Amino acid sequence: MEKVCVLGAGSTRYGNLSDGIADITTQASAAAIEDAGIAPKDVKAAYISNVFGVADKQVHLGPVLMSNLGIPDRPSLSIESACGSGSVSFREAYANVAAGFYDCLVVSGVEKVTHTGTEWTTTYFAYCSDYFYEGQMGVSFPGLFASMARAYLTEFDATEEDFAQVAVKNHNNGILNPKAHLRKKITVDDVMRSAVIASPLKLFDCCPFSDGASSVILCTEKFAKDHGGDYVEVIGSGRGGSPAALQGREHITTIPSTRTAADAAYRMAGITPKDVDFAEVHDCFTIAEVVDTEDLRFFEKGEGIQAVREDRTSLNSDISVNPSGGLKSKGHPIGATGVGQVVEVFDQLTGRAGERTVKDAKIGLTHNFGATGASCAVHIFQSV
Amino acid sequence: MEKVCVLGAGSTRYGNLSDGIADITTQASAAAIEDAGIAPKDVKAAYISNVFGVADKQVHLGPVLMSNLGIPDRPSLSIESACGSGSVSFREAYANVAAGFYDCLVVSGVEKVTHTGTEWTTTYFAYCSDYFYEGQMGVSFPGLFASMARAYLTEFDATEEDFAQVAVKNHNNGILNPKAHLRKKITVDDVMRSAVIASPLKLFDCCPFSDGASSVILCTEKFAKDHGGDYVEVIGSGRGGSPAALQGREHITTIPSTRTAADAAYRMAGITPKDVDFAEVHDCFTIAEVVDTEDLRFFEKGEGIQAVREDRTSLNSDISVNPSGGLKSKGHPIGATGVGQVVEVFDQLTGRAGERTVKDAKIGLTHNFGATGASCAVHIFQSV
Repeated sequence: MEKVCVLGAGSTRYGNLSDGIADITTQASAAAIEDAGIAPKDVKAAYISNVFGVADKQVHLGPVLMSNLGIPDRPSLSIESACGSGSVSFREAYANVAAGFYDCLVVSGVEKVTHTGTEWTTTYFAYCSDYFYEGQMGVSFPGLFASMARAYLTEFDATEEDFAQVAVKNHNNGILNPKAHLRKKITVDDVMRSAVIASPLKLFDCCPFSDGASSVILCTEKFAKDHGGDYVEVIGSGRGGSPAALQGREHITTIPSTRTAADAAYRMAGITPKDVDFAEVHDCFTIAEVVDTEDLRFFEKGEGIQAVREDRTSLNSDISVNPSGGLKSKGHPIGATGVGQVVEVFDQLTGRAGERTVKDAKIGLTHNFGATGASCAVHIFQSV
Repeated sequence: MEKVCVLGAGSTRYGNLSDGIADITTQASAAAIEDAGIAPKDVKAAYISNVFGVADKQVHLGPVLMSNLGIPDRPSLSIESACGSGSVSFREAYANVAAGFYDCLVVSGVEKVTHTGTEWTTTYFAYCSDYFYEGQMGVSFPGLFASMARAYLTEFDATEEDFAQVAVKNHNNGILNPKAHLRKKITVDDVMRSAVIASPLKLFDCCPFSDGASSVILCTEKFAKDHGGDYVEVIGSGRGGSPAALQGREHITTIPSTRTAADAAYRMAGITPKDVDFAEVHDCFTIAEVVDTEDLRFFEKGEGIQAVREDRTSLNSDISVNPSGGLKSKGHPIGATGVGQVVEVFDQLTGRAGERTVKDAKIGLTHNFGATGASCAVHIFQSV
């Protein structure tokens, strides 16, 4: 197997964007190519992640991207695993480079949905649940994560104010991220007084609907060295699955796919959770981040919430969780999110994260899942 | 690299199906698993191909499939490359097995759209074009392939009756396929008198909108031998791209991505086009099959039409093209088509093709593209 490296990264701002889906995909991809110091012709294929191309009337995005980049003869494909699409696409690209099929690829995640409005977006997203048991019964994602939050409150020593603190922390980080969607300082009181979406989750416990595109250049170590410039190495990659419907799981305060994916990634990287300096985790709702940090084994089950209370996951504390602002503040363009996490890791490990830099960071982790964690991928990166 | 084999295959009937998208995906996958003589737990991951899950309100199909199969912990993903999704998903699965990431996978393609009606289906499919230049200008796929057909008629010694003969041949084959959508004998006269869809293409020059699901089990040679049963070997795999919009191409009577993908597959297999005993090619319209057989280098440019006229592509002639009935008669559930082609090759090379058997066949080829060939994958298989 070849060593696989990230050689460049680019991203649009996350938020309500006016440009179309093909344009923002091209903008992010071109930015990553430029950042890597390579030419489009060096890119041998494109791995795109996108869920609702239908919403902007363009599926089969790959050939449009390749044509826009001036390399229409190169193969491309789109990968979908709901909100985990980005990390799953990254995983497939990783596998292809590791196996020697390509020496240099672009991985581009994108979503463009906000123009369809909240009702349509919520409806589309519900198609990512186990629709027979969940979506068609009227349960959309806020309701599903609210069930998890309610179970967590019942099972462990936690309060709604503790969940709110996750949002406060991630907004504190997002303020420092020029590309974040919600760059606004909030307090626990703000969260507690925001509209109840699905009790116990309030509006400010939920990530926003965002548009956006993020891209990274993935290549062999030899290619990275030959083309100069900063790069980081992918040292761990793991995937996992969980029962599609929440009702099919024995416990709903843990996500089995995170554990499977993380354990595989740690094993491959030859590290333990303690070695991780910072992590971009899937905080679609505040409860999700708490569960994630436990399933990633940063904390024991039930103790993730204490870590939040004791401020051990904020920037440059014990472990910096979501230095980018996470899905909560940076935003959640669902097809882009997993790739955007890698952009953050690349920026952090190559000294481009500005005010939100995690000091002396050597190892970063990305964790991104689809739906309520029915699918998941975890990747671990190391500076060189 | 591991040798990669197809160990089992399963498919629903193609046509207007009443069961939902998750159900038909499960039916085909379970049939392939049973056909391979393995248990669901032997399947380490699922590669799904699907384009418009939205149409049946279920995207993120993988975890639903895995849960239905009783293996919810296993990873899965969906791949989309428009009408070429099946072959592209097969390619990714192939790469993962060849590289040793998994020893046994299921590749399942599916589409469920007919319940949305012709207008919605046409609209959805148009999202697979380069929407900025094509779809939004009112050009859907019949119009684009009609442009190719008109150019072919102008450039070469061909008639509309010649195109009609492709449809007649594929229906002759499809009649022998119990799972085909349109099992009806037609004549050149029938084609010529059918409604003009986009001149020079008539209704019977066009494949139908179909629902359906097809699955194959892909594994290492060692796994295949250890688990007994018939298997065939994948000896060639190639991918290619073309400018997304038809207007971006120098010639429109050839599809560049087919040439790129085929040449790569032939090179890898160490064979020439003459060695191919039969081919399942992408005949979404009759003109497409003619162009395909030239780009696959079975015939010189402009001579594919003569081969049709001289009946050199019918069952057990010079080269059997689309023994299954092809997209034209077997049907075209767009996410399933590329996988369904592999089902046909498996059935042919393991002696299960019944009345439509290509005699003494040793090498079969599958060719499947997206849109007007903006993306393409070609695979070559050999009996063992």
